[in-house]
Amino acid sequence: MATWSDSQLASIHKMLNPESVAIVGATPRMQYGGRFLNAMLQSCQDRVRIYPVNPNYDEVMGVKAYPSVSELPEGPDLVGIVVPYNRVLDVLKESHEKGAKSAVIISAGFSERGEDDRSDLQAELSRFARESGLRCSGPNCLGLANVRDNIWASSSSRGSDGLTGPVGLICQSGASAFGPFLTRAVEEGIGLSHIISTGNEADLDFCDFARYLLDDDGVKVIAGFVEGFKDARKFTEVARLAAERGKPIVLIKIGRSDLGARAAQSHTAALTGSDAVYDEIFAQYGVIRVQDYDELLEVSQLLANLPKPTQKGVAVVSHSGGISSLTADMCGQAGLDLPLLTERARDGINGVLKGFGWAANPSDVTGFANSESFPEIMDFLISEPTVGNLVVASAGADAQAEQVIAQRDAGDKGVAFLWTGTRGATAGLPKLKEAGIPIFYVPDKLAMGLKSLLDYHEWLEGRNADGFGSASAMSGTQAAAVERVTGLGRASLTEYEGKQLIVEWGIPVTREEVAGSAAEAADAAQRIGYPVALKVNSPDILHKTEAGGIRLGLKNGAEVSEAFNGIMEGARRYDPQARVEGVLVQEMVSGGVEVIAGVNYDTQLGPLVLFGTGGVMVEVYNDVAVRHCPITKTEALEMVHQVKGVKLLQGFRGSPEADIDALADTLVRVSQMAVNLEGKLSELDINPLMVMPKGQGVKVADALAVLQ
Amino acid sequence: MATWSDSQLASIHKMLNPESVAIVGATPRMQYGGRFLNAMLQSCQDRVRIYPVNPNYDEVMGVKAYPSVSELPEGPDLVGIVVPYNRVLDVLKESHEKGAKSAVIISAGFSERGEDDRSDLQAELSRFARESGLRCSGPNCLGLANVRDNIWASSSSRGSDGLTGPVGLICQSGASAFGPFLTRAVEEGIGLSHIISTGNEADLDFCDFARYLLDDDGVKVIAGFVEGFKDARKFTEVARLAAERGKPIVLIKIGRSDLGARAAQSHTAALTGSDAVYDEIFAQYGVIRVQDYDELLEVSQLLANLPKPTQKGVAVVSHSGGISSLTADMCGQAGLDLPLLTERARDGINGVLKGFGWAANPSDVTGFANSESFPEIMDFLISEPTVGNLVVASAGADAQAEQVIAQRDAGDKGVAFLWTGTRGATAGLPKLKEAGIPIFYVPDKLAMGLKSLLDYHEWLEGRNADGFGSASAMSGTQAAAVERVTGLGRASLTEYEGKQLIVEWGIPVTREEVAGSAAEAADAAQRIGYPVALKVNSPDILHKTEAGGIRLGLKNGAEVSEAFNGIMEGARRYDPQARVEGVLVQEMVSGGVEVIAGVNYDTQLGPLVLFGTGGVMVEVYNDVAVRHCPITKTEALEMVHQVKGVKLLQGFRGSPEADIDALADTLVRVSQMAVNLEGKLSELDINPLMVMPKGQGVKVADALAVLQ
Repeated sequence: MATWSDSQLASIHKMLNPESVAIVGATPRMQYGGRFLNAMLQSCQDRVRIYPVNPNYDEVMGVKAYPSVSELPEGPDLVGIVVPYNRVLDVLKESHEKGAKSAVIISAGFSERGEDDRSDLQAELSRFARESGLRCSGPNCLGLANVRDNIWASSSSRGSDGLTGPVGLICQSGASAFGPFLTRAVEEGIGLSHIISTGNEADLDFCDFARYLLDDDGVKVIAGFVEGFKDARKFTEVARLAAERGKPIVLIKIGRSDLGARAAQSHTAALTGSDAVYDEIFAQYGVIRVQDYDELLEVSQLLANLPKPTQKGVAVVSHSGGISSLTADMCGQAGLDLPLLTERARDGINGVLKGFGWAANPSDVTGFANSESFPEIMDFLISEPTVGNLVVASAGADAQAEQVIAQRDAGDKGVAFLWTGTRGATAGLPKLKEAGIPIFYVPDKLAMGLKSLLDYHEWLEGRNADGFGSASAMSGTQAAAVERVTGLGRASLTEYEGKQLIVEWGIPVTREEVAGSAAEAADAAQRIGYPVALKVNSPDILHKTEAGGIRLGLKNGAEVSEAFNGIMEGARRYDPQARVEGVLVQEMVSGGVEVIAGVNYDTQLGPLVLFGTGGVMVEVYNDVAVRHCPITKTEALEMVHQVKGVKLLQGFRGSPEADIDALADTLVRVSQMAVNLEGKLSELDINPLMVMPKGQGVKVADALAVLQ
Repeated sequence: MATWSDSQLASIHKMLNPESVAIVGATPRMQYGGRFLNAMLQSCQDRVRIYPVNPNYDEVMGVKAYPSVSELPEGPDLVGIVVPYNRVLDVLKESHEKGAKSAVIISAGFSERGEDDRSDLQAELSRFARESGLRCSGPNCLGLANVRDNIWASSSSRGSDGLTGPVGLICQSGASAFGPFLTRAVEEGIGLSHIISTGNEADLDFCDFARYLLDDDGVKVIAGFVEGFKDARKFTEVARLAAERGKPIVLIKIGRSDLGARAAQSHTAALTGSDAVYDEIFAQYGVIRVQDYDELLEVSQLLANLPKPTQKGVAVVSHSGGISSLTADMCGQAGLDLPLLTERARDGINGVLKGFGWAANPSDVTGFANSESFPEIMDFLISEPTVGNLVVASAGADAQAEQVIAQRDAGDKGVAFLWTGTRGATAGLPKLKEAGIPIFYVPDKLAMGLKSLLDYHEWLEGRNADGFGSASAMSGTQAAAVERVTGLGRASLTEYEGKQLIVEWGIPVTREEVAGSAAEAADAAQRIGYPVALKVNSPDILHKTEAGGIRLGLKNGAEVSEAFNGIMEGARRYDPQARVEGVLVQEMVSGGVEVIAGVNYDTQLGPLVLFGTGGVMVEVYNDVAVRHCPITKTEALEMVHQVKGVKLLQGFRGSPEADIDALADTLVRVSQMAVNLEGKLSELDINPLMVMPKGQGVKVADALAVLQ
């Protein structure tokens, strides 16, 4: 089943483009209901049929009022609901009967109260919306605005003063959407196409509205502020679609400091449980994460208004050495490249400067930034073959702004402005805003914004070439292996059982056999080849070392026999109740680099694959990479190169280079397995996975699988 | 000799508080010279005698002009120099002869040109200023302003519109000082006491002016923007004095991305050579590093206007759930604590809210943030026993602002504002600015600012209790040991020689002897006790392992003899020219944790001590801490706890806790040695230093010392 039905998207369309709107609870007082009516009247009375619904008035604000929804002359496209919480469901039902197409529930008093009965009530709204098809935004939201078409179905008293543009804004928090985001967008001259507040998201959520905006050609960037996802899988799905359409999603997501949110049930879970997972998932899906109001708007504006960079290089020009240096420093910190100038540009600019300032990248052109020669300087810089974007760091008057706008209009490279004057400047700045030149006010945010632009387009190009990961259905033998282990009737598998499972996904494991006696163990060792390791084989002993259940480097039959007896005795001492099913006789793997790979199921995101360097590294440095499953080979390679410990795989201290290619293949297989086993597996911890020298593959030396 | 002489400080005083000022190069045109004269006339014509000097005019801007400095009626307190670069020195000389007290050189065309002759000329200015006592700011600056007393000796056309306050601003870049910093300070209502641009710093530099401002009771915070320090040791000295006076220094320093600036001559040097060293040194000296214009001003304002927090806890209140959540999230990310509310506060606030909003920390108080009840809510929050600062995140009208100001005035706890409206708001915001309530506009900067405030006061308290590190002079035996090694006539010391040196600073080393023959080696091993290690003893073989020059775990005389011969033979093969002075017979150290300690001399900062976890950690993760020497025991402990690998010392995976106390003592000793050997030692690399279990001390297992 598709995540988004046509009828759902049609409901959202009606909600944002209504021809008729009822406001239930409209009053003459400028509280929530009155403001909603007023916003509608002010913005679109001439184009939309507006019906106040309130049994206490014959008319409100000069418009005929109706005692109830049932008595309206038509079933409205949108019903704004501003009544006490305990009346909302009745209004919804009445609206549905009347043939209403959508609803915005401003009313609060639901799950945000943290009380069970209120949450239950919200669940009822949710159910009703889905079953009836009367889709809703809210409750506890401030409504929404189709800014482009000037339809404000909102209880906020604020508007955009006619400013509109290609950034679609979706926030759970209505006070944020119609507060700092809207007011600063207007102040900064950043045009929004839509402002949508989703509140408690009883029915429609951030992802649903984002999905809708993807179809709107006028929306180039989706900007959002979410406190959490109702359904993070919908988010990855909408992010995929956004990538297909080449529309970036820029997001503030709360949770940066929610470090201990989830109880970690296992080592792997503990590593993936933090908000850091979202950073990685966002990067995987090309979502740009920011963390403040201005940044969300400025970065969105940059992405909406600058073309795809033709080159990675950035040129910086300023009237000041100090300002250009700081800008360059921040660009470097963000990872941008400021290429050295060619002789042509250097000589050309020096020809203008005649000994004043500094023809370089960054260029400090002193007063020439406010002269007739400035276009010539900018042209030399932007024409550099390695430069894709020009940054002007200055605060000149209208003349300078006009030069910069003309420079932008004359070519296909990007021009951004670091405005170093006041935000309230009346010269220069307003012209830049009006022309849609992306403007930043502090150099670090400019640099991070430009880096996001470059990263996004690079990511998108890679995605278009590479696609997203996909997993095929399980084969018959895989399904049989799963049936075998689920048939055991216990959650914890022994090392041997776990390996028998994962080997079905083509992941190489150590040669090994289970032996029930010292003699069997010695026979097995003979077949496997000395030296061998012996490990206690018990579903009840997960920490084998603590139980004295591991003996390594056994060189002959005598050592194996002695080890067998020692392990069995130790296991009995450690846990007399443990089911001990003999020992595992295993080949010794040497000459490889220890890494770990794992699978974890996030309650929100679903299957995650984890990779890290092994041993002390993972425990001391938490040096791990995480991705949503399934992954591509490219993503697997990125995971490997993301961890600092990759150095250990690249020929560290004279050791041979490890088989990173085989490692990446293995991670892909692990991710496939994670997808195939969702609902059955709880976690998988391959530790260590031995990465052998280049060309020799990898081998699972130990693995712990826990079923659900 | 004191770094700052009274006469130097007196010169700066005259410069900032002149009773007479000559402007050489003043013209009627509003270029640099004309603007300087105009700034003086506009700001202080009634209080300061102003003399334009220009042979081409009888008067400029209505003021009598003089053909030369010699012909002035008096030797002025300050000479503003705005003449072509090649005339500056003459003007300085003439001014000195006339008895002028100080000079500000606006003229550019010196070392910033990157040409040798211009740098030489600047060096001449420098020499003349120091020798004559006519101290200068500049060249290539924009001048300075005593904002408090309204004396603007600057070529900028901008002023502060009468706004003044306790933040002293010093920037090398004049266009930054009188550009974004000044204009945004005015826009944000942040009062500056002084604005000083130092330009190329031929004579007086950032540190000199900072030193001067420390004596000014009206200056509470020194804010600065530096591209680099002329003399970083002066900086550590001024930072010490600032700590004594309890005046924070808030700084932007360029160099964040100057990652490969210094050629690393040794492993240790490579680790300490990056800009990251400055982060650590700033933290050591209580200097708050920020990176953008607004942040410098906002954090300075916060530090100047908020009292020392009585408690670490922060309470956040907002009209919006989304805004309060984001603020709390950013507070958590910055490391701030938002304590849970007591029952008293929760019940009290709930009594106001009556079911709307959320009485917690953060509190979402909905419309009550703009009601008569808001003071009561704030009072409940700020009265919490664990709360030291209250953050109001809102954008209300004047009434709300007045309530917040009254709340601040009523108690001794801090109140800061996260303004979520527009920066150009005309209600509320101006009142908050006027009252000196510290205001931030995005939650992440607010959170980082508050964290800086808490960290600074915690640091200061620790410093006051603990003092700065100090090093005593070398003892006689230490001096003799130094003489021994410098007398060897070579830079590289053998392991044995190096250890013989460091043992004089009370740092325990392995028991070891040099042996010239296999028999001597076996005898030595007997005395030391088996097992032993043998290492080649040669000043020419620094990488002993590569030369096959290390044998470990030798258990008896036969093994020692065989090892001796093997090492000697290997060394001859490895480098036939190497001077091999037998082998070092050394006790084997086991049961300890490997760490590294080192000394490095930064060309700017002088002696640095380095600590890191050993082995792979330091190479893969660069997990090291660096401090300026000498350090205190407290600082040594901080270094140890700063590296992530400290876990390995704290009883990792069941191993015993290591002797962190002895390790800290050792780092202190290493730092003392670094101070004592400055000018003689080039680097010291103790690797590994073995940290034994608690109570058993540390032991240097290997050390590489290189003399200058």
